[in-house]
Amino acid sequence: MNCFNDLADFSVAKIEELLALARRLDENPEPRALEGKVLSLLFLSPSLRTLASFQAAMVRMGGGTFVISPNMSIHGLESRSGIVMDGAAAEHIREAVPVIASYGDVIGIRAFAKRENLDDDLSDREFRELTSLVDTPYINMESAIKHPCQSLADWKTMNDLGIPDNGGKFVLSWAWHPRPLPLAVPVSTVHMAAMRGMDVTVLRPDGFELPDAFMDKARQAAAASGGSVAETSDRSDAMEGAQVIYVSSWASTHHYGNKRDEDEFKLELRDWCIDEPWFANAASDCRFMHCLPARRGVVVTDRIMDGPRSVVIAEARNRMLVQMAVLHQMLSS
Amino acid sequence: MNCFNDLADFSVAKIEELLALARRLDENPEPRALEGKVLSLLFLSPSLRTLASFQAAMVRMGGGTFVISPNMSIHGLESRSGIVMDGAAAEHIREAVPVIASYGDVIGIRAFAKRENLDDDLSDREFRELTSLVDTPYINMESAIKHPCQSLADWKTMNDLGIPDNGGKFVLSWAWHPRPLPLAVPVSTVHMAAMRGMDVTVLRPDGFELPDAFMDKARQAAAASGGSVAETSDRSDAMEGAQVIYVSSWASTHHYGNKRDEDEFKLELRDWCIDEPWFANAASDCRFMHCLPARRGVVVTDRIMDGPRSVVIAEARNRMLVQMAVLHQMLSS
Amino acid sequence: MNCFNDLADFSVAKIEELLALARRLDENPEPRALEGKVLSLLFLSPSLRTLASFQAAMVRMGGGTFVISPNMSIHGLESRSGIVMDGAAAEHIREAVPVIASYGDVIGIRAFAKRENLDDDLSDREFRELTSLVDTPYINMESAIKHPCQSLADWKTMNDLGIPDNGGKFVLSWAWHPRPLPLAVPVSTVHMAAMRGMDVTVLRPDGFELPDAFMDKARQAAAASGGSVAETSDRSDAMEGAQVIYVSSWASTHHYGNKRDEDEFKLELRDWCIDEPWFANAASDCRFMHCLPARRGVVVTDRIMDGPRSVVIAEARNRMLVQMAVLHQMLSS
Repeated sequence: MNCFNDLADFSVAKIEELLALARRLDENPEPRALEGKVLSLLFLSPSLRTLASFQAAMVRMGGGTFVISPNMSIHGLESRSGIVMDGAAAEHIREAVPVIASYGDVIGIRAFAKRENLDDDLSDREFRELTSLVDTPYINMESAIKHPCQSLADWKTMNDLGIPDNGGKFVLSWAWHPRPLPLAVPVSTVHMAAMRGMDVTVLRPDGFELPDAFMDKARQAAAASGGSVAETSDRSDAMEGAQVIYVSSWASTHHYGNKRDEDEFKLELRDWCIDEPWFANAASDCRFMHCLPARRGVVVTDRIMDGPRSVVIAEARNRMLVQMAVLHQMLSS
Repeated sequence: MNCFNDLADFSVAKIEELLALARRLDENPEPRALEGKVLSLLFLSPSLRTLASFQAAMVRMGGGTFVISPNMSIHGLESRSGIVMDGAAAEHIREAVPVIASYGDVIGIRAFAKRENLDDDLSDREFRELTSLVDTPYINMESAIKHPCQSLADWKTMNDLGIPDNGGKFVLSWAWHPRPLPLAVPVSTVHMAAMRGMDVTVLRPDGFELPDAFMDKARQAAAASGGSVAETSDRSDAMEGAQVIYVSSWASTHHYGNKRDEDEFKLELRDWCIDEPWFANAASDCRFMHCLPARRGVVVTDRIMDGPRSVVIAEARNRMLVQMAVLHQMLSS
Repeated sequence: MNCFNDLADFSVAKIEELLALARRLDENPEPRALEGKVLSLLFLSPSLRTLASFQAAMVRMGGGTFVISPNMSIHGLESRSGIVMDGAAAEHIREAVPVIASYGDVIGIRAFAKRENLDDDLSDREFRELTSLVDTPYINMESAIKHPCQSLADWKTMNDLGIPDNGGKFVLSWAWHPRPLPLAVPVSTVHMAAMRGMDVTVLRPDGFELPDAFMDKARQAAAASGGSVAETSDRSDAMEGAQVIYVSSWASTHHYGNKRDEDEFKLELRDWCIDEPWFANAASDCRFMHCLPARRGVVVTDRIMDGPRSVVIAEARNRMLVQMAVLHQMLSS
């Protein structure tokens, strides 16, 4: 495997192979598989799970990491082209990124959506610019529009729980959030569940549709795997028989980059906070999934988070395990 | 060993076994003993020695660590219950802590006293809440009322120096400090010296008594080991024949959480700065111990810190060695 | 090897031996050479390449590191003598440095020039004070006046490119920069190129001479190796036949510590930004070298940085490789 950027780049068979490897590495550790190997970690956006799980993953296989984050110990990095750098930033990404990559066998990069231009974010422009600067294999640790490690972990979590692929009913629901969050998780999640062959419903208020291009791509993936993709703003319709509700908050593309307009637009939507009544007509053991962090009392109530439906800790732990599989495939000889 | 939370949980024999293991690992390194093992490090309070020594300890045995600190690269963590999280904090400890723990084989947690409520701090309420969230073994890296790694290192330091256990005279002295510091070190230190069977005197100005419950507990430990625990505000009485003066600064429980009152109360106490005259009637080779950091010219004079009495660097290095022993017991198979 | 502080401490033969080892470790990794070994990293100044490359170097040989930086997770460190520490800093370097060193087998220390007193900086006073506090071997990761790891990497880069030692023409050029930068890189670079036996020209505007003592020392090194050291403010004279232009920005010693005076003094010097016309009478394949970070459009133009002359990424990668050689010599048994 050369890079890990998008689940859509892989076949379902390849994904299941990765998940089998993740399970094997959990049950039969290989503490020397990656000895002497280095994963460079470049965080242009904040992190907790990703930061911790990638470091732990490398240690478990005998390798190691280093972390560079402009907020930690270096001055900001300039990313604009043709600029006269006489301000605060002392270094340009055109040097920083290839240098950081050159110390590792693989580089993980995180760069959230800039939210300045919708088309730039939908086309993952910044992340593509960053990865064009490196010669080594790379891993997408969440870009403007992709979060493949999260999707792979979520796929494993559903496998571990025995949630059916074909015939399984998966609801991706929007939730209210004080900040306009990126599209990376919802877009990646719909595609993942569609690839897995599930019947997927995107539940969101009007105005929070996911971009057509990604819905179409997910529909094609569903068609290939025997699943389906639908969309509604009707909670009861969406939740009927659901086995999983995956909750995410994302910005409206109609007010993209304009927090004030969006704030006003979603003023009446604070009841989009997942609570037990949402599950009225779901499967009795319907699970609650979320990539974390999740704001309690805002996105989801305490009783759901603390109750038996929630599998968020398992999802988070699976981040480490699937990343171990990805790194093992890239780096072990 | 499942957890390492309090020296009082262990027998003297077990502690001596740990110290023997620490010495063995120093003399005969085991660079593969913990290969592939991960220690998760969660710092909710600042650190230098603990941060460095735990990382070094794992490397020396072939394992590794990752560090999460809310101040470093993530937004603050919410810890209140039943809260509507629409402020700055994006994540609750109820998710963050179990997730962080799930990536490691053991988790080290540091969380200083909040100094809002004396009873909460004396009962180590926050630390108990944090550890109730994890399934893995854990290590107390300093909580509101405990610092077992420091105490174990101090015990080893006295063993290394040949300071007698039974019959050894140990003075724990208060020192002036501009900030109201936690009780974790003094309370843990008194108990440690008492368990070691020493004759312990707590030397402090009136108003800076250590809480009765902990003094009583220390007296019981002393009784079991053949030692004793006394208390005085008289410097000369306390220092008579002392073989060790262990210096610490701590807040008055009478003004707990009220810095202004305490500042006024201790206005006349700046002469509680350890200097050579303190040692007038001590044993000639009486040692100066301190857990560090120590404010020079405030808590202790330069000539003591730079002189032959001071063993503070040895104490600090022993932090790493005893932690290696604890980790080895927990993680090597 | 006990310490690595100054290239001038080593013979040319020893340096070539280190470079051969660096090449060998690149081609034939030794992922267990330093298992269980710890490199302590103390950053009193910011870093990207040094921070990343030292961590990666240790992982590649099976060891590990920890990083302490007062900006990261601890309060500032006091360094003045005889001070009453009742301000913000809770710890003195006299404790912090030996403690940090005591956890490792070798310590790397970075401390940029303070720019308060020229003589102090030229004599590397602070760095010598810091290293006088440690018992372990140490590595200079850039001090007020030295950057030996950079110089060793640059030497390797020229070897890799087949740039001749005797007879090779090396220009060190000043460039305009908004901030008054330290002398460590230019002073170390002149000495390195002189030791390598090259014909070295320092190209700088009047007022930006390098200190005589270091020029003299470089001339002696050149004499011993069959090279030469000259100085000029004439661009065309300097660049005639040059095979390398090494660009650096440094403060004027005539306005040392006085940014305002220096700003005014160099107001007319913004054309000291390296661009293609500089190379008019250089060797056709004349290389551009820089230790990075380099401000684009200020120190050097985009077309040079992005063009075929630039070898800055190779220089940066060589940092890791030569540091591996240094660490291997210090730590492998």
